Amino acid sequence: MKQAITIDDTILHFQHVRKTSEQICSLLQTEDYVVQPVAEVSPPKWHLGHTTWFFETFLLKVYAPHYKEFDPTYNYVFNSYYESIGARVIRTDRGNLSRPTVQDIYRYRRYVDEAMVTFMQENASNAKIIDLIILGVNHEQQHQELLYTDIKYILGHNPLLPAYQTDYPRNLSTSEKEEMIVVKEGIYEIGYRGDGFCWDNELGRHKVYLAQFEISSMLVTNGQYLEFMEDGGYQNFNHWHAEGWDWIKQQHLVSPLYWHYIDGQWMHYTFRGLEPVHTDTPVCHVSYFEAYAFAAWKGMRLPTEFEWEVASPNFDWGLRWEWTESAYLPYPHFSKAPGALGEYNGKFMVNQHVLRGASEVTPIGHSRNTYRNFFQTNQRWQFTGIRLAR
Amino acid sequence: MKQAITIDDTILHFQHVRKTSEQICSLLQTEDYVVQPVAEVSPPKWHLGHTTWFFETFLLKVYAPHYKEFDPTYNYVFNSYYESIGARVIRTDRGNLSRPTVQDIYRYRRYVDEAMVTFMQENASNAKIIDLIILGVNHEQQHQELLYTDIKYILGHNPLLPAYQTDYPRNLSTSEKEEMIVVKEGIYEIGYRGDGFCWDNELGRHKVYLAQFEISSMLVTNGQYLEFMEDGGYQNFNHWHAEGWDWIKQQHLVSPLYWHYIDGQWMHYTFRGLEPVHTDTPVCHVSYFEAYAFAAWKGMRLPTEFEWEVASPNFDWGLRWEWTESAYLPYPHFSKAPGALGEYNGKFMVNQHVLRGASEVTPIGHSRNTYRNFFQTNQRWQFTGIRLAR
Amino acid sequence: MKQAITIDDTILHFQHVRKTSEQICSLLQTEDYVVQPVAEVSPPKWHLGHTTWFFETFLLKVYAPHYKEFDPTYNYVFNSYYESIGARVIRTDRGNLSRPTVQDIYRYRRYVDEAMVTFMQENASNAKIIDLIILGVNHEQQHQELLYTDIKYILGHNPLLPAYQTDYPRNLSTSEKEEMIVVKEGIYEIGYRGDGFCWDNELGRHKVYLAQFEISSMLVTNGQYLEFMEDGGYQNFNHWHAEGWDWIKQQHLVSPLYWHYIDGQWMHYTFRGLEPVHTDTPVCHVSYFEAYAFAAWKGMRLPTEFEWEVASPNFDWGLRWEWTESAYLPYPHFSKAPGALGEYNGKFMVNQHVLRGASEVTPIGHSRNTYRNFFQTNQRWQFTGIRLAR
Amino acid sequence: MKQAITIDDTILHFQHVRKTSEQICSLLQTEDYVVQPVAEVSPPKWHLGHTTWFFETFLLKVYAPHYKEFDPTYNYVFNSYYESIGARVIRTDRGNLSRPTVQDIYRYRRYVDEAMVTFMQENASNAKIIDLIILGVNHEQQHQELLYTDIKYILGHNPLLPAYQTDYPRNLSTSEKEEMIVVKEGIYEIGYRGDGFCWDNELGRHKVYLAQFEISSMLVTNGQYLEFMEDGGYQNFNHWHAEGWDWIKQQHLVSPLYWHYIDGQWMHYTFRGLEPVHTDTPVCHVSYFEAYAFAAWKGMRLPTEFEWEVASPNFDWGLRWEWTESAYLPYPHFSKAPGALGEYNGKFMVNQHVLRGASEVTPIGHSRNTYRNFFQTNQRWQFTGIRLAR
Repeated sequence: MKQAITIDDTILHFQHVRKTSEQICSLLQTEDYVVQPVAEVSPPKWHLGHTTWFFETFLLKVYAPHYKEFDPTYNYVFNSYYESIGARVIRTDRGNLSRPTVQDIYRYRRYVDEAMVTFMQENASNAKIIDLIILGVNHEQQHQELLYTDIKYILGHNPLLPAYQTDYPRNLSTSEKEEMIVVKEGIYEIGYRGDGFCWDNELGRHKVYLAQFEISSMLVTNGQYLEFMEDGGYQNFNHWHAEGWDWIKQQHLVSPLYWHYIDGQWMHYTFRGLEPVHTDTPVCHVSYFEAYAFAAWKGMRLPTEFEWEVASPNFDWGLRWEWTESAYLPYPHFSKAPGALGEYNGKFMVNQHVLRGASEVTPIGHSRNTYRNFFQTNQRWQFTGIRLAR
Repeated sequence: MKQAITIDDTILHFQHVRKTSEQICSLLQTEDYVVQPVAEVSPPKWHLGHTTWFFETFLLKVYAPHYKEFDPTYNYVFNSYYESIGARVIRTDRGNLSRPTVQDIYRYRRYVDEAMVTFMQENASNAKIIDLIILGVNHEQQHQELLYTDIKYILGHNPLLPAYQTDYPRNLSTSEKEEMIVVKEGIYEIGYRGDGFCWDNELGRHKVYLAQFEISSMLVTNGQYLEFMEDGGYQNFNHWHAEGWDWIKQQHLVSPLYWHYIDGQWMHYTFRGLEPVHTDTPVCHVSYFEAYAFAAWKGMRLPTEFEWEVASPNFDWGLRWEWTESAYLPYPHFSKAPGALGEYNGKFMVNQHVLRGASEVTPIGHSRNTYRNFFQTNQRWQFTGIRLAR
Repeated sequence: MKQAITIDDTILHFQHVRKTSEQICSLLQTEDYVVQPVAEVSPPKWHLGHTTWFFETFLLKVYAPHYKEFDPTYNYVFNSYYESIGARVIRTDRGNLSRPTVQDIYRYRRYVDEAMVTFMQENASNAKIIDLIILGVNHEQQHQELLYTDIKYILGHNPLLPAYQTDYPRNLSTSEKEEMIVVKEGIYEIGYRGDGFCWDNELGRHKVYLAQFEISSMLVTNGQYLEFMEDGGYQNFNHWHAEGWDWIKQQHLVSPLYWHYIDGQWMHYTFRGLEPVHTDTPVCHVSYFEAYAFAAWKGMRLPTEFEWEVASPNFDWGLRWEWTESAYLPYPHFSKAPGALGEYNGKFMVNQHVLRGASEVTPIGHSRNTYRNFFQTNQRWQFTGIRLAR
Repeated sequence: MKQAITIDDTILHFQHVRKTSEQICSLLQTEDYVVQPVAEVSPPKWHLGHTTWFFETFLLKVYAPHYKEFDPTYNYVFNSYYESIGARVIRTDRGNLSRPTVQDIYRYRRYVDEAMVTFMQENASNAKIIDLIILGVNHEQQHQELLYTDIKYILGHNPLLPAYQTDYPRNLSTSEKEEMIVVKEGIYEIGYRGDGFCWDNELGRHKVYLAQFEISSMLVTNGQYLEFMEDGGYQNFNHWHAEGWDWIKQQHLVSPLYWHYIDGQWMHYTFRGLEPVHTDTPVCHVSYFEAYAFAAWKGMRLPTEFEWEVASPNFDWGLRWEWTESAYLPYPHFSKAPGALGEYNGKFMVNQHVLRGASEVTPIGHSRNTYRNFFQTNQRWQFTGIRLAR
């Protein structure tokens, strides 16, 4: 029997998630909140404002009749990509905004959080509103993961290479034995089933036919990836997609992101600062192009997202987002929600690849084996890794 | 019983295809052979040279011991994308080459054709060589389709809008009744089966599970597409992928390629010159983004390539290449051929969408319902169209 | 008789200038110090660091034997364009640096200032060193002007349009009567004469022949510029250089920088925030292209830098940097200083135009009628204005 | 006493110039007329059409009442940059036009030439019209020089490096003794004086004061330039403008245009094909940036255009266009002609440098020592050279 979730539970969960975002940022200097070194990175203060704007825009301004907007200019500043909600700062300009200040944004968070608590208490039994709040909380958890990735990029591309946290826990390698797990041919069901929260892109549970396949119990390690590099992996076009090859040549890439070859040794930037690459840690910060090339070099391939989902109960996952061979496409009978929230996932279902799993910076409780993450095939600032199949 | 194909049949077929390429160009002025108005269009003379280089490079220079290369500089000029074969003119520079002249290239064709006939006679019973010749012939047929599309682009973007052929046959609409064909749920086999020629990307026949679906017996017409345009289809972001929306806004697109709104009427450039848009002709020259948006506006969707292949015996096809919802990915157990010919298809299997069918300019005998064409999602200079599913 | 400048005077002057830079920034929020909205704007904290680095690099590290560098990574961060001094952050990346923090940089300033005072006392009678200090002080004054212009750009391009200082003094119009001052034909001497400080590009005093000309006693006002705008000045190519015309069309420019047409009225961003355009204030933030077009529309022209220098004793100047018709070229017998300081001016003497005068944000004591400022012809974020000649 | 020029002389001169343009092209293949490898190069057929359009547009369509335009679409195709005359093919698209064909354009030339001869006979005594014809003839001569430079670029950038004319005469070095010619301080007059043809930018004869200077009797040779290269001239930023340095680094330039280092030897493409660099021939195809850097390396400088004009009677010139230190600016009292012809020179007087002299491909009779040519400081496809001063 499903246990009832009370409104007090929801309020506590809301407050916990809201506080966690701020804790992630608590190690930053004010200046670290502001910058945007590349288009895909957003300034931390923007994340803090945008997640707040989400609650204000989709809940308070719509359903709380007496709510007074904190500042009307914020709608322009903190809208990410919702065409329905009006004009917005273009994405590449987020790092040009010194105002609102960090302090302004924390004030904004306080203001909205207080209004939200009152609002939740007043709407304790409104299922539709509770669902929207849960959506907002999950949205903020997604941005917590982005906060970690963006902070790593900001500090890891600063010439001073400052640590985020000198005693940040080391990412241990999994203890599993490396073996190929065999999954039998058959018709399997794919997609979310249950009555908890999930994203619209996981819905539309449906059947797929899978031929028999094998999938590794382990993620590819830095040590294995170094073998690929040392075998000339970045110099042999045979392993690469044409587009991937052009990209690595144009960008002069010869290693994963954050790796530096210094005095005869491969080092990489971590949250603890610069340190030697550990060979038995799962490789991280590789693009789909690199994951594909590595697999081709190994004479294997990446799993499809369907294979991954079916096999996932048989291996540990959650350290790295894992690239799949699957392009990001709608499931059968996918339908967009009406209104602005319909812009959440559907409009990005083209020219991206699916990642499955979760990563070391994914918030606890924010992962499922039906979760579909997605990025362009050249992105590597996320905590992405590789699992092989054949 | 399969009838034996003799070497004389092969020689005749070779000669027929080689001649057809030249016939397609016979209506051109010398100047038309030279220009490259956009990166994806190649000059006609480049196609004539490149298809010849293909036979010279992959057959004569490898297997004909006494063959003397026509001109060593041509390898640099006519290599398209084969990294294995060495350096090459970058794609965007093909239109900067006034030499070799058209006459030089026809001379090159004569030279290679004569060598090929002798070579074929000497290798009449060498199955591997015959297979390579068949491959080269199919390769040239692909370039015949490209010749038509590129010639249309060259003439259709000239301010004088010259006709290619004033009596070029009009593309009739299909006579079929418009209805939704129902295909039952089931496991189906996908991919080429037989002993004729097919491309490597069609191989690896495999099972897929399909839920029940419906697919239109007819292609979307210009008239239907005009309704979409007149209903503000290009002004409403809800129908579009985010990337498609950015693209049409940046390019200021409001109609298919070659359409011009003149004195209150929609005209389009055809091989006959500029003429009014016929409402009952299948719409042509739309990108995947536009096909997707049209389907979304209709409350329907595009078929997957698997649905298309399964349903295809039940409808007429062959007037337009038809966009599918499927990203271009390898079939299970896809493997690249060894050597340079392995670069033919596999390295392009990312960030493109599959088209199925064939078009009015596809050479006769060069279509199958397992044929997989593919282009980037914003390309529209091919003879592409739309078929709806749900 | 020239009065002797004692070392104490120099120390006081040094300290005054150093303090002034910090006072300019004292009205900023921490976040305002960090951002770089366009390539030509540098973050205020970068200016504060770079001017300090200048003293550290060209004085302390060279001439103070026991000086211990504050932080060796700063050389990479704060080098502006000195090739001789080694690698540096590329200009467009200055806004991506959250570290060193603002506080770090103030600490750096304290550290270097203290070392400098001791150093000055120890070298009180070393004329070469005193000259270098004076150079560094003038260099910092130049950056004070840039601080104002960059701060205005940062705040004036923020969607919240925050004021820099709500009671910032209004820029009064000059009280002069508008008249054309006649200067007679003759041979005049151009360039700096005296024994005070000047830049190398002012030296090489030399003769020029000037035909008789007339020059306005007044700067062009906003009101006059509005007449140009209302007469279709930005729509008529006849007034413009071809390059200027292409630029305003591509950038969609119809007014000076910071002007906004709101509810039927021209407003502009000032240090006090957004306010209506005053018609009798000198027009500001126009490019050379616009200054030229305005003059052409008036049937007049801009003065050459030689005409300006000769006529300058006869009119008030100092509110706006004034565009001249003269390209920025070396004076006869111009020679670069040896070493890195030789990179100061000479290497920029191409494809820029000369501005003469000074502006409302030029530090007091930092202007001369022989001073040659220079910018690319499309730059307008400086406090630039227009004076007509014929 | 000035001898009268009869209308028959003018007709003969017109016909001679028109024929010369076609003779320059007579060595080309049809394909060579069509291509545009870089934006600044125009296809030869465009030059042939544009110079014809000039006579049609500015004379026949304005002053010949019964003239029937050859083809109204040509106005769009062959307008170069005249905003007054309406829309035009953008410059970078000239190489995308296969139509009108070369034959069409020769037909156009015939048609306009015949109309012009009749028109000239009918207007034998109309001084204004005769002046316009002389202008058109000089305009065509300018394009003859461009035909040579553009043809050299087209053939010299083809991977086959075809010769333009295998027996094209070798450019001899001047026989002068190398010496520094001294010109005394004084007031000199600059600009065209006389009653022959000159361009508007040469008019406004005016006085300049020149200090004493020295100028070389000889152009810099390939041998001298090689010394600069071998002394690391392209690797030492001290010799270069900042903008020039960035440009050579970005473009990876280490030599003049058309130079190739092959098997340990410097070769260059000439109209005769590829051949070794002659050390005693004047260096050619250098940009202003390179000319400046060479002079800086030599411890000398380039002459100003005024110095050049004053000194020019004392040395041989005409083999190379010679870069000067002078930016291209209007002479005092420069005024644009009314109407479209006013766009001829004035609107380009910004961000370019002046060249003086003439080159080996300048038409005979088309040079004067007051002639002002001008190009952007990074252009080097013209026959440009270097003369030193101090």
